[in-house]
Amino acid sequence: MSGRVLALSGGVGGAKLVLGLRHLCGPGNVTAIVNTGDDFDHMGLYVSPDIDTLLYTLSGQSNRTLGWGRDSETWSFMAAATSLGAPDWFRLGDGDLALHVLRTQWIHQGESLSTITARFAEAWNVGVTLLPMSDRRIATMVETEEGVLPFQDYFVRRHCEPAVRAIRFEGADTAAPAPGVLDTILSADHDAIVLAPSNPFLSIDPILSLPGVREALVRTATPIVAVSPLVGGQAVKGPTDKLMRELGLPLTHSAIMRHYGAFLDGIVVDAPDDIPAPGNLPTLVTDTMMVSLEDRIRVARAACDLAQTL
Amino acid sequence: MSGRVLALSGGVGGAKLVLGLRHLCGPGNVTAIVNTGDDFDHMGLYVSPDIDTLLYTLSGQSNRTLGWGRDSETWSFMAAATSLGAPDWFRLGDGDLALHVLRTQWIHQGESLSTITARFAEAWNVGVTLLPMSDRRIATMVETEEGVLPFQDYFVRRHCEPAVRAIRFEGADTAAPAPGVLDTILSADHDAIVLAPSNPFLSIDPILSLPGVREALVRTATPIVAVSPLVGGQAVKGPTDKLMRELGLPLTHSAIMRHYGAFLDGIVVDAPDDIPAPGNLPTLVTDTMMVSLEDRIRVARAACDLAQTL
Repeated sequence: MSGRVLALSGGVGGAKLVLGLRHLCGPGNVTAIVNTGDDFDHMGLYVSPDIDTLLYTLSGQSNRTLGWGRDSETWSFMAAATSLGAPDWFRLGDGDLALHVLRTQWIHQGESLSTITARFAEAWNVGVTLLPMSDRRIATMVETEEGVLPFQDYFVRRHCEPAVRAIRFEGADTAAPAPGVLDTILSADHDAIVLAPSNPFLSIDPILSLPGVREALVRTATPIVAVSPLVGGQAVKGPTDKLMRELGLPLTHSAIMRHYGAFLDGIVVDAPDDIPAPGNLPTLVTDTMMVSLEDRIRVARAACDLAQTL
Repeated sequence: MSGRVLALSGGVGGAKLVLGLRHLCGPGNVTAIVNTGDDFDHMGLYVSPDIDTLLYTLSGQSNRTLGWGRDSETWSFMAAATSLGAPDWFRLGDGDLALHVLRTQWIHQGESLSTITARFAEAWNVGVTLLPMSDRRIATMVETEEGVLPFQDYFVRRHCEPAVRAIRFEGADTAAPAPGVLDTILSADHDAIVLAPSNPFLSIDPILSLPGVREALVRTATPIVAVSPLVGGQAVKGPTDKLMRELGLPLTHSAIMRHYGAFLDGIVVDAPDDIPAPGNLPTLVTDTMMVSLEDRIRVARAACDLAQTL
């Protein structure tokens, strides 16, 4: 298959799959709707971590050692800023600052996150249409045993340690999806809509929480498949498994499926659940661990192959 | 002499003298009123070049090779920003960004340039009270044969090439001097007020153009001496000599003296003018070239010695 695909994506895991899809379908044939619930202001700069991760991954500039940020990064800014009393819990690399500084400047000049993201994507020739989920600010808030934490406080400052009771997306109930988001979901242009193996609760749910998105996914004629983020019953990276336990969910692909609900048409998993749930969806089993570029293309192909059968 | 001194200063040349004064008088005994007419917004960041030069020079972090910015600077930000289409004519170093980013953040939060500058000076323990000339934005505008250019366009982008017809300080006529500026000039706390060997037209005049400053200099009982920026009949750095020719002024210390006018009580020069002007002020002749720290202390001492005789 070498058709056109729409992905819903968070950061690292999502970026890997979107890179695989771009290699599979070719530049210009992939669109990604990207979570912006992690966006926040740091030192007065507008940081959009998932969009940035996609930009770095798709332009071949991601830092494979750190697992976030740019490769060959330098840290002069952080050293100078902390010597001036700035906080050091969220580290902004020198090269990474370019996205934050330019985005902040342009936002202050009245441009939209969509326009700015498209400009970045074009400058770096990423070959994928990147749509932020919304041009409005939405803040993922994590209700924990220690109180409500803004996402980056939970994720970076507190290393996901406090047990989570609930997650909400501040501002999502009244925020319009970004231009193109609903149209793209509803259009007949794509052969598949793929939910990337990002954290369903922290990275995909913010997109689903926007007015009209879930309805569009239910209505669209395009087959929708998810790639399960669980590999060997665990999250590859990040707090998905810890979070599922804290939310009282079994660590199964079925739990992921049920969480997404009615709009899902199929799921790609690494292995069948030990105890198959009743009413399971069409499932394709393949090795979903993505280490090499070949892995990414293989998982992308599995998602597209499954969609084609639906 | 090891008294207390107030300096009026621009960037590089001024910073050298202020460093000499701090060594001569000791930490806590020097105040500098600093030109902010060069300040501008670049990529949405509030850049204050003369204050930054003083901060770097006084904290031992100045880049002696470039003659501006921080030592051991890295340039990852500029590389990434230009790859995203940002302009490259004004280069922001990675470490240097810390001052700009934090200043911008705090200004947006409603803090004053004075407060922010004091915080930076304290964090880096510079040992000198740094007063921006005003908390209001003032923009040095250079009227050239090619039209009116904002200062950094003239100075950095156009390398001071267009011939200058006049200079004005936009906003200065209605901008109050920063808190402390007039009081410090009028107070009896200082043994000398020293006009640093900065560009009189581009770096000292903006300070003098603020309401009340020239009057305070006329009224104060403290002796006021200038260190002439001409060495061997030329500027050590920057466009002072070119500018004086374009403004129709002879390249003499007397021309500098006459330019400052009635408030000046004495001047430190490298050598007497070839043709002494009538009505010359008390003059102290010494080598005013400042290469080493010892030079800086020597010139600082000369200015203080001259003031003591007045």
